[in-house]
Amino acid sequence: MSQYCFGVDVGGTTVKLGLFSPDGTILDKWEIPTRTQENGKEILPDVAASVEAKLAEKGIAKSDVIGVGIGVPGPVDGNGVVRKAVNLGWGILDAKAELEKLLGLPVEAGNDANVAALGEMWCGGGKGYQNLVLATLGTGVGGGIIVDGKIVTGATGAGGEIGHICMNANEEAVCGCGKRGCLEQYASATGIVRLANRKLSAVTEDSVLRNGEVSAKTVFDAVKAGDKVACEIAEEFGEYLGKGLAMIAAVVNPEAFVIGGGVSKAGDILCEYIAKYYQQYAFHGCADAVFKLATLGNDAGICGAAKLVLK
Amino acid sequence: MSQYCFGVDVGGTTVKLGLFSPDGTILDKWEIPTRTQENGKEILPDVAASVEAKLAEKGIAKSDVIGVGIGVPGPVDGNGVVRKAVNLGWGILDAKAELEKLLGLPVEAGNDANVAALGEMWCGGGKGYQNLVLATLGTGVGGGIIVDGKIVTGATGAGGEIGHICMNANEEAVCGCGKRGCLEQYASATGIVRLANRKLSAVTEDSVLRNGEVSAKTVFDAVKAGDKVACEIAEEFGEYLGKGLAMIAAVVNPEAFVIGGGVSKAGDILCEYIAKYYQQYAFHGCADAVFKLATLGNDAGICGAAKLVLK
Repeated sequence: MSQYCFGVDVGGTTVKLGLFSPDGTILDKWEIPTRTQENGKEILPDVAASVEAKLAEKGIAKSDVIGVGIGVPGPVDGNGVVRKAVNLGWGILDAKAELEKLLGLPVEAGNDANVAALGEMWCGGGKGYQNLVLATLGTGVGGGIIVDGKIVTGATGAGGEIGHICMNANEEAVCGCGKRGCLEQYASATGIVRLANRKLSAVTEDSVLRNGEVSAKTVFDAVKAGDKVACEIAEEFGEYLGKGLAMIAAVVNPEAFVIGGGVSKAGDILCEYIAKYYQQYAFHGCADAVFKLATLGNDAGICGAAKLVLK
Repeated sequence: MSQYCFGVDVGGTTVKLGLFSPDGTILDKWEIPTRTQENGKEILPDVAASVEAKLAEKGIAKSDVIGVGIGVPGPVDGNGVVRKAVNLGWGILDAKAELEKLLGLPVEAGNDANVAALGEMWCGGGKGYQNLVLATLGTGVGGGIIVDGKIVTGATGAGGEIGHICMNANEEAVCGCGKRGCLEQYASATGIVRLANRKLSAVTEDSVLRNGEVSAKTVFDAVKAGDKVACEIAEEFGEYLGKGLAMIAAVVNPEAFVIGGGVSKAGDILCEYIAKYYQQYAFHGCADAVFKLATLGNDAGICGAAKLVLK
């Protein structure tokens, strides 16, 4: 008898869904729009209806479904209660209990960044490791901490909020969180642009980066082309992130760091810049940690969500 | 039928042992010398003999013993293998397997600082919390991270090495670990003396601290007496440690921080200085964490070791 599980990744505009076998194979994946109106009250009913429709389409009995995992963009506590998901319009919502009631299936819920870390552990860049840290470098810096194969949720669902480690108490610009000098002000896609613009203002040297709009991609493309100013920006980025990951290592001592998010499209060169400074700052007992690129892209969320229900 | 467990805390000069009931009551405790000669080869046989003697003395049958937990001053991996304990003369030693063979009882082994954190969770300052961080402020700064009631051992037993988070990349003095600017260079007993001496050299104001040898105790005694220079030193200490703990919170988001070690004898005023700066630097989702003093003193090690065998 075949068994199945579902992974659901709720984003601000679309909900991604996946049907999985327990070995991690994606059997099917699809999307539905996220209806955020009226405090997102239709989101979970829409998810339930979509899962029911898929079961009917595939002729799968509910008794063959292990469960449904769901990742949400906001803090989720250890009981599957969402503590606020601004982008969905949700306040405090017991997502696990509500979706269980709608579907009559076991449900587990987690924060989307944490769930992505679990996905990369299960079938992505972190495969083979039970203790890893995912750093997702996108608009901000998200993170997920996996200890002994399980997500570190934390007391209030803020486990893995590594983008808000204070790296520079003297920073003048304010982070989205209201503090100053957070890791994501330097290591996110927008942070890299900030570092780049600061550098381009501070030096007079020529650089291909002066020829158009600067993005994390143009910076690392220029690094690959040997642009000196771009290389200096990458060093600065590498020092902030490598040092930040070294701090994290002194807490949870992971086997591996997995680097994901849009910035990670720059490829292996990114890991080189990070690892160089990681080694400079890391406690000697943590020096063996390896650096890997995330491989699942947008599927990390549905994969990790599905894994949530496989104990 | 009564049940029992043993907790063993191996130090460089003495081995502390305790006999416990599974509810955390210490039924008996005693010490034996640590024989470190010949690479400490007699240490585990001495522990086994001492446990056997206690069983005979109390008339306890081995079938009523749940197990023996042992804490060791060095990294211990998740399988109970010690990766090097310099103070004991041990290289790589499978302490769990060896002691199990000697005693014919289940054994669990852990790093002493991590085990102390488990002890404080079980019956000390962290009672009632399943997610906590112990910061032990002694000669150095040790730590233990507890997530969902279990020690975070890490990939190589370096989980909770929070004394070696880099707080100041511009520090000129070298830490015992070989790096510069580690948290323990500012927040340990010796770190506080360093901060005090730097401050006393930098300012000309009078201070009771100029009247004799400076120690962490004299600094906090002077703070309580309202000495202005001492208060400035305490602010500096509080900022380093509060900021360091805020970094840790962005990783594991604990419910509570427990402050132990000799420095914690200064009392509640210590937590006030730390909490002030913690709030300044912590991510808002981690702001609810409470600060508690450790209460077990030298018994934390045997308590936590005993708890290791109670799953």
